[in-house]
Amino acid sequence: MLEGLKIEVYKANQELAKNGLVTLRWGNISARDERTGYIVIKPRRIAFTQIKPDDLIVCDMEGKILEGSHTPSSDLFTHLEIYKAFPQVGSVAHTHSKWATVFAQAGESIPNLGTTHADYFKYDIPVTRTMRPEEIAKDYEKNTGRIIADAFTLKDPMTTPAILVKNHGPFVWGRDIADAVDNAVALEYVAEMAFYTLRLNTDADMNKYLIEKHVQRKQGGKNEQ
Amino acid sequence: MLEGLKIEVYKANQELAKNGLVTLRWGNISARDERTGYIVIKPRRIAFTQIKPDDLIVCDMEGKILEGSHTPSSDLFTHLEIYKAFPQVGSVAHTHSKWATVFAQAGESIPNLGTTHADYFKYDIPVTRTMRPEEIAKDYEKNTGRIIADAFTLKDPMTTPAILVKNHGPFVWGRDIADAVDNAVALEYVAEMAFYTLRLNTDADMNKYLIEKHVQRKQGGKNEQ
Amino acid sequence: MLEGLKIEVYKANQELAKNGLVTLRWGNISARDERTGYIVIKPRRIAFTQIKPDDLIVCDMEGKILEGSHTPSSDLFTHLEIYKAFPQVGSVAHTHSKWATVFAQAGESIPNLGTTHADYFKYDIPVTRTMRPEEIAKDYEKNTGRIIADAFTLKDPMTTPAILVKNHGPFVWGRDIADAVDNAVALEYVAEMAFYTLRLNTDADMNKYLIEKHVQRKQGGKNEQ
Amino acid sequence: MLEGLKIEVYKANQELAKNGLVTLRWGNISARDERTGYIVIKPRRIAFTQIKPDDLIVCDMEGKILEGSHTPSSDLFTHLEIYKAFPQVGSVAHTHSKWATVFAQAGESIPNLGTTHADYFKYDIPVTRTMRPEEIAKDYEKNTGRIIADAFTLKDPMTTPAILVKNHGPFVWGRDIADAVDNAVALEYVAEMAFYTLRLNTDADMNKYLIEKHVQRKQGGKNEQ
Repeated sequence: MLEGLKIEVYKANQELAKNGLVTLRWGNISARDERTGYIVIKPRRIAFTQIKPDDLIVCDMEGKILEGSHTPSSDLFTHLEIYKAFPQVGSVAHTHSKWATVFAQAGESIPNLGTTHADYFKYDIPVTRTMRPEEIAKDYEKNTGRIIADAFTLKDPMTTPAILVKNHGPFVWGRDIADAVDNAVALEYVAEMAFYTLRLNTDADMNKYLIEKHVQRKQGGKNEQ
Repeated sequence: MLEGLKIEVYKANQELAKNGLVTLRWGNISARDERTGYIVIKPRRIAFTQIKPDDLIVCDMEGKILEGSHTPSSDLFTHLEIYKAFPQVGSVAHTHSKWATVFAQAGESIPNLGTTHADYFKYDIPVTRTMRPEEIAKDYEKNTGRIIADAFTLKDPMTTPAILVKNHGPFVWGRDIADAVDNAVALEYVAEMAFYTLRLNTDADMNKYLIEKHVQRKQGGKNEQ
Repeated sequence: MLEGLKIEVYKANQELAKNGLVTLRWGNISARDERTGYIVIKPRRIAFTQIKPDDLIVCDMEGKILEGSHTPSSDLFTHLEIYKAFPQVGSVAHTHSKWATVFAQAGESIPNLGTTHADYFKYDIPVTRTMRPEEIAKDYEKNTGRIIADAFTLKDPMTTPAILVKNHGPFVWGRDIADAVDNAVALEYVAEMAFYTLRLNTDADMNKYLIEKHVQRKQGGKNEQ
Repeated sequence: MLEGLKIEVYKANQELAKNGLVTLRWGNISARDERTGYIVIKPRRIAFTQIKPDDLIVCDMEGKILEGSHTPSSDLFTHLEIYKAFPQVGSVAHTHSKWATVFAQAGESIPNLGTTHADYFKYDIPVTRTMRPEEIAKDYEKNTGRIIADAFTLKDPMTTPAILVKNHGPFVWGRDIADAVDNAVALEYVAEMAFYTLRLNTDADMNKYLIEKHVQRKQGGKNEQ
């Protein structure tokens, strides 16, 4: 079932590892099949570099497993909430990539300070609110997805396709798998540059006309130069 | 003798090198055979990448060499003290990995600031007290192991399987070799993230309910996602 | 047309990637053919590692495409302004390399603090002024090239062959392609070292007699040791 | 002439590159033949990764070339002064490795803050005084060697086999080539750790009894574990 999508998700796992975004088994990527609405996701307990297409799991939007002999990633229900809240999303990636996680641990959003950021994310990358004890005790992964969705009630999630879950790490999405992987790579890069830019100049800020220009150029191309 | 365990220790040496935790000849890993209680450890004076399974040394818990033509790692007696103090430990790794060593040199513990830390270590990673001149002059390596054990008299060493030896570097352990290697990789990663998290927000702290949740998830799986 | 130059530009793209100066599709390099004055430039929307010599575009100094089936890099008109303003330039490279971009985002020039800098750049690396809304709205890429040229009205652009475009990233040039690539590699290296040097000693400065000596040694050799 | 030594110097060049200590063509390594007292050194203008054993140059202690068709490294006369001043030295390496150069640019010595430092260098790594205009104008490379030698008039250069030339970079030496390469690798590593240790704890310092212990262990072994 969905063999083509499985191969794409499989390759995206390799891509995340190759770009230095995953260490040990921290992270997972999923994709939504446009026709059926089913989700293909990475299994738990298998190292990123050892996953094969057949190890991938197919489930429906309620998390019911339709195919696959492994347990799905423990973050599955966070992915599902993101797909439910943002219908345009075709793929979700979660990593513990270093710099994005540093901002998540600090509870600080990643400010837009340059055209690299603006080419991928119109606004600052937001950070979720502190989770409440009862949200952690029960349906933890589902509630993580809900507070992600809540953070985007006032703006289009596709203009800034990433968020930092406080004390945890980034969740990133895209129209499709390639888009989600690109956004995850770009997020880590702009997080590191934002950290050092503010160390060099605490008053650094971004030219708002440049943001508009680069967001508009993005619509025409695909963040390419 | 213990040929299977030797191959595992041999591979773990490669694994530490591959994960960027060892430079030149700094570091060593050992494992305890459950049945005999014997220890397999890396020899001294052989580069990490050049060790072969047959170069490994087998000794008893008093450090008496039972097999092997090389001198054992000079830190052997530190390893032995850790095995004696913590019966659940099946493997010990010592590295001079950069960020963990930075905290050791600063005499600062590594604070738990996120789920990456909580997935592997329940508490902050402690740092040992300053060694006294007489502890350094005689039985230096053995005394290093003793002050490591002392630091865990009040808590379970398996919930936080790592420590920083002040002005020296980290010692890490695990139920088995794979576990010790994973913990060494995770330690280095959370050390670096903790450093930068505190630079970004000096008041950063961790949600204690998240710690409980992730420690509990860990029991079910194996720090996997 | 210009097959030899295409192969050189193709190889330079690989070289920039190999030296860690490009991530995803951020960056582009071009060269000017001495005889015809034509420009060979990287196409848009093709990953750095996937470009083949035949994908490269040949255009004239007004940007008219003479050969090539792809769209040229969106920064083409910035390159053209640099070639127009600086007749000695044979190649232009644009990257979002991390440390040079950090200085660009901070709006800070990169100070000359050592012989590594002086071997390649006589002066501090300048940063362009803030672009005005009307310069961004219309002919954005051309105007970017113009404010680069403006920044060098008082000095020889070949003694300090690089500039930081504020909130964007570095543009680097050279007598030929190999020179431009070397300068891009050196720029990133000295940017990182300058950042940390000033963290270690806020009063750090450079011996002006050493600058003269190394600039003069450079004329004889080719920044080599 | 000295074919065996040429192959060793050739391999050491690869080793420096493999350990990330050289970028572009910045750096050079030489060795002294014990019997003849002749020096084998890297040629100028050839990339580190492209040098072949036959490209190496043999010269005497006055810099007279005895064999080789290339120009020797421009730093040759600095190497010669080090050999003249320190008779125990069998090999000299010069790099622009990042962290050692950062300390050199800041004009700050690298403090001994841990056993990794003590295993290779007993004291802090010193930094040379500012060079005077006349020392730069004439015999610049020779004078660089002289101020290096001056910095060790009060102590044994073999206990701390490295120095930082202010605003330039590190020079490192050893009993033989392998020793010089090891010391260059260790220097870069302890420089980086010292930088971050002081950021984490400005009062960090080293237990002097640990220094004695590790310096003494070093005599027995070869900085091995």
